[in-house]
Amino acid sequence: MMTPNKRKNDTLASICAVIENQERFLLTSHARPDGDAIGSQLAMAFALKQLNKQVRIINCDPTPDLYRTFPGVQDIEISATAKGNFDALVVMECSNLSRPGLQELQGNYTINIDHHLGNENYGDINWIDETAAACGEMVFDLIRFLGITITHDIATHLYLATLTDTGSFHYGNITARTFEMCRQLVEAGVNPSSIARKIFDSGTRGRLKLVGAILNKMDLEASDRLAVIYLNDEIMNDTGGSEDDLEGLVNIPLSAEVVQAVAFFKDFKGQPLRVSLRSKGDIDVRAIAVTYGGGGHANAAGFTSDVPIEAVRKTLISKITATLDNNSPDS
Amino acid sequence: MMTPNKRKNDTLASICAVIENQERFLLTSHARPDGDAIGSQLAMAFALKQLNKQVRIINCDPTPDLYRTFPGVQDIEISATAKGNFDALVVMECSNLSRPGLQELQGNYTINIDHHLGNENYGDINWIDETAAACGEMVFDLIRFLGITITHDIATHLYLATLTDTGSFHYGNITARTFEMCRQLVEAGVNPSSIARKIFDSGTRGRLKLVGAILNKMDLEASDRLAVIYLNDEIMNDTGGSEDDLEGLVNIPLSAEVVQAVAFFKDFKGQPLRVSLRSKGDIDVRAIAVTYGGGGHANAAGFTSDVPIEAVRKTLISKITATLDNNSPDS
Repeated sequence: MMTPNKRKNDTLASICAVIENQERFLLTSHARPDGDAIGSQLAMAFALKQLNKQVRIINCDPTPDLYRTFPGVQDIEISATAKGNFDALVVMECSNLSRPGLQELQGNYTINIDHHLGNENYGDINWIDETAAACGEMVFDLIRFLGITITHDIATHLYLATLTDTGSFHYGNITARTFEMCRQLVEAGVNPSSIARKIFDSGTRGRLKLVGAILNKMDLEASDRLAVIYLNDEIMNDTGGSEDDLEGLVNIPLSAEVVQAVAFFKDFKGQPLRVSLRSKGDIDVRAIAVTYGGGGHANAAGFTSDVPIEAVRKTLISKITATLDNNSPDS
Repeated sequence: MMTPNKRKNDTLASICAVIENQERFLLTSHARPDGDAIGSQLAMAFALKQLNKQVRIINCDPTPDLYRTFPGVQDIEISATAKGNFDALVVMECSNLSRPGLQELQGNYTINIDHHLGNENYGDINWIDETAAACGEMVFDLIRFLGITITHDIATHLYLATLTDTGSFHYGNITARTFEMCRQLVEAGVNPSSIARKIFDSGTRGRLKLVGAILNKMDLEASDRLAVIYLNDEIMNDTGGSEDDLEGLVNIPLSAEVVQAVAFFKDFKGQPLRVSLRSKGDIDVRAIAVTYGGGGHANAAGFTSDVPIEAVRKTLISKITATLDNNSPDS
């Protein structure tokens, strides 16, 4: 029987062979890229350039402002189409080929690198490693396997990927391997505090005001186990917040031990009502989202609705309360 | 000339000699202990017990609720006096012997272990290492030097110390050595996500409400560079928050890029007004606190005052604004 390590090394060897034999690479990742997507792409681009390869990065959405000052970000192309002649695609962090949101991706030789469950294995080479804390951790392994020097730029992006995708080492598959990588990244010149300051101290005035307004109007239901928070045009205008400021906001109420689930209502004029759901542990909010035609994961799901907020709110609270009651340690 | 490594090894050897030759140890740390104080003490206690030493931990204040479920916490004694017969004290994280807040500490043979600037070298052995990310990192070095096995309990406490004292790897002297330690702690059985969840998802309902109330009433002064936040009996009662919930709250406004300083007014009836100041980079709030008879560090200072809040507020805002103007990139 093939051991997991043997299988991993065989996959890395196949990817290396393609990289060594081909010249023109297109790197892409998912729509609305996050720190792991941006960090993994740029680390890979810097590595391929060290091998004198032609590299382009194309994403369908712009890089979040937060990461704009990271090296190489200005070279990322934003486009709806993957136009050009490429010998191979490297698609990172995408469960299928629609996730990048790019036309004309199909038909290219594709290397699929992902650390999420549920990848559809759409590549010519599929390297899926759910034990990695971030896609950046896989890129690190590949770079090491290729014998490429970890430059300061590469190290910066791999650290960015890991720091953001683990929520500052709070969740995900953090292993001894994660910290061994971080040790090597610091030895390559990364300053962890300076990167953290860039990312986490560069919020906006609007976000700060939004957090205040939302938590101040938060309702606690089901004996405080369910936090219900609201956003509408009025709150957005009063606080001066923007869509960009909403990232991660839905998770804040989970920091209270008693809170097991969060429902976040976004109710903007002229738009369908959007509802995001979050939960801890065994509380499956996906099953609830599905009853409204939505979907997601057990602990992070959502749906949209054309029914007025008051009506949705009432049924949703009773459904979540029932789930909480069924999962309580006493039941 | 003695190299820093030679000096460190000599100091570690002296501490080892005391540990090996003595039997009865008292461990203590500063009043209102934080994660690094609790983690360093308990890691050291578990290590000494492996050597069959008699160990007592005495603190003047209780362990914060957040850490109550960590192994060994129930054995920490809370007392105003360090009563007992000891062969040696191990005092951690304390710049001087008043910081533990314990009577009858003086006169014992004392090992002083600290990673802060400004330690007064009050011990018979003084081991001060400002390059350590946390006191826990020093305890790790000592445990390794003593040849003690890193058990799951020891690893848990060293990880707790480092995770909390670096603000989840956001600040402090994080080096390759920090990550090498974390790698070894994970190999000893630490689950980083599970420890993070214990610490950061166990806030109270009151804290969540407090964050909302305080940010919602925040004033932004000096072109948004100064955030002024308030707490009084009314807010405390409305939110159901407690003193324990205030930990780290003063730092939240610094997450906005534009905010360079924070003034936090705690104005409770029948008590002197307490003002905490925080800042980023070169903004020295200690110098301002000193003008009110207070003190602290350049980026974290404070004072108390018997003058009414309105009067203090006005002068304080102009002093901080002047400091901000003097430090602006244009000046």
